[in-house]
Amino acid sequence: MRGAVLYGPGDVRFVERDHPRIIEPTDALIRMSATCVCGSDLWSYRGINAVTRPAPIGHEYCGIVEEVGSAVTSIKPGQFVIGSFFASDNTCRHCQAGYQASCQRRELVGGAQAPMLRVPLADGTLVATPEVPPDELIPSLLSASDVLGTGWFAADAADVKPGKTVVVVGDGAVGLLGVLSAKQMRAERIIAMSRHASRQKLAREFGATDIVTERGDEGVARIKELTNGIGADSVLECVGTQQSMMQAIRSTRPGGHVGYVGVPHGVALDGEALFYTHVHLHGGPAPVRRYLPKLIDLIWNRKIDPGKVFDLVLPLAQVAEGYRAMDQRRAIKALLRP
Amino acid sequence: MRGAVLYGPGDVRFVERDHPRIIEPTDALIRMSATCVCGSDLWSYRGINAVTRPAPIGHEYCGIVEEVGSAVTSIKPGQFVIGSFFASDNTCRHCQAGYQASCQRRELVGGAQAPMLRVPLADGTLVATPEVPPDELIPSLLSASDVLGTGWFAADAADVKPGKTVVVVGDGAVGLLGVLSAKQMRAERIIAMSRHASRQKLAREFGATDIVTERGDEGVARIKELTNGIGADSVLECVGTQQSMMQAIRSTRPGGHVGYVGVPHGVALDGEALFYTHVHLHGGPAPVRRYLPKLIDLIWNRKIDPGKVFDLVLPLAQVAEGYRAMDQRRAIKALLRP
Repeated sequence: MRGAVLYGPGDVRFVERDHPRIIEPTDALIRMSATCVCGSDLWSYRGINAVTRPAPIGHEYCGIVEEVGSAVTSIKPGQFVIGSFFASDNTCRHCQAGYQASCQRRELVGGAQAPMLRVPLADGTLVATPEVPPDELIPSLLSASDVLGTGWFAADAADVKPGKTVVVVGDGAVGLLGVLSAKQMRAERIIAMSRHASRQKLAREFGATDIVTERGDEGVARIKELTNGIGADSVLECVGTQQSMMQAIRSTRPGGHVGYVGVPHGVALDGEALFYTHVHLHGGPAPVRRYLPKLIDLIWNRKIDPGKVFDLVLPLAQVAEGYRAMDQRRAIKALLRP
Repeated sequence: MRGAVLYGPGDVRFVERDHPRIIEPTDALIRMSATCVCGSDLWSYRGINAVTRPAPIGHEYCGIVEEVGSAVTSIKPGQFVIGSFFASDNTCRHCQAGYQASCQRRELVGGAQAPMLRVPLADGTLVATPEVPPDELIPSLLSASDVLGTGWFAADAADVKPGKTVVVVGDGAVGLLGVLSAKQMRAERIIAMSRHASRQKLAREFGATDIVTERGDEGVARIKELTNGIGADSVLECVGTQQSMMQAIRSTRPGGHVGYVGVPHGVALDGEALFYTHVHLHGGPAPVRRYLPKLIDLIWNRKIDPGKVFDLVLPLAQVAEGYRAMDQRRAIKALLRP
């Protein structure tokens, strides 16, 4: 089969790759209905994460189960399933505590920008929809595989509750779905930090009540101004840079919560400064599996439409254009159809 | 009057100082029943915090109200009161949220190692006991002014709950009272990290179920061993060094909570490493005022005896010996009687 391989910075190719097969008896093979390019793929594409040799890429997926290993009991061929980028057994103590992305047997799912994918620990990892979904639900169901689950975790980690004032730092797909998540959790006020018209528009559609275009010190000052000098109750950090992290922490009121899901790149926190902010800090790779049943339910019942973050749809063969469009911020998120 | 003045590293003197007086109408003057030396005073005493000029020192206090300013309404002369090192109005939004140590009008209370003390924002800061307490309760009531309130906050910030496994990093007075606090919050297992026999003994008296003497990597390995490879649910960081902070974070299970109250000195947290630990992090200067009514009640009704951390009692005039004994770890905590 042909799939995406990252050869080096700026160099994604659609080339012949080994056809995935069942390796462990707990594996499943799925035929991809749709996959996509993630903001975190760009760290490698931009050369910020080193690329030492050509490697299959992609970690967001949904599709039809084609085959399962002999030890798989709950997942069956023919089902439409969604899973997370971290395979998890969903039974260990960390999984039971809701931290499936720290599963004691966790395994990265990789090479998903392809027509077929091997998913380890299928019973623990995959969640099936009630039936094979109609086409129009595919983008939203695909988003649950990572960006929606990650935005939801950011909001949950930031302790978003009814009536609270929420700030979202980052207007990528995760940040925008953080807005949607905060709205679902009935935040009273949702301030999206964005300086891009198309993203501001989507943020408003998802529930943002205010838009702040300033960044850094000015951004923090603007948040303070909008909250009577208090700061926000809950701040979602959806970027992963030093500037965005500090902007998030400094926008939070003492006793407020920062949920951070942008994979930190070069972020260092000064212990003493953090101490005096009095914030709660929680984040990490989203335990998407914890939220999948709920998110699938919301999508299935048309309560949310997170698939709107896909503003570019391409045939999988044009995966390189998907990366270029996202790298140049021409697209929020590119969906790829095998 | 004569009180303690820190002149430079290792140089505390009991010398003539200005007699405190009412400056603001919201002030109170209190006649000290007892004061003490804090682990955090040692940062300056050891020259780790710069001392640029002689300064009155001490911030833990309890005693009888001698005089109040014209705007003070709830605190009255003759009452026995306890307050925190941060004066707070107890009415602003931060105070209402329970973060009195971040009060919008907060003011450090300083120079408490003296027979008389000016306390700003008296109505918001001070809490009176039901009556003037008997002498034997004074040490415990004094501990509520800082170390008990700080240990309690560490346990609260670390989300200690019935049935949980708790680790306490640091065997100073705050760490030991973190053990006591975790016990009050009905933790099932309390692991104290200590290598000093007298402190281990007190930790056991306060409720520790296990003692770990190893530190650093070995300490973390030992905690993992004691928790079946999982890590602790709640970890209290009561020191403030890079080593103790990392020991706390690495001893916590994914999804677990670190409550940190040791004032960080030279602590830097790597964002990416923290991200993958999946811990909750919360701490800061303890909002002691939030807990004072409850702590006074527990002491008044003889439910807890936190005053046991004072293993050295000196006349105030011998304050310099109190510093020396704590610096050399001959004493856990020195109580000073004016």
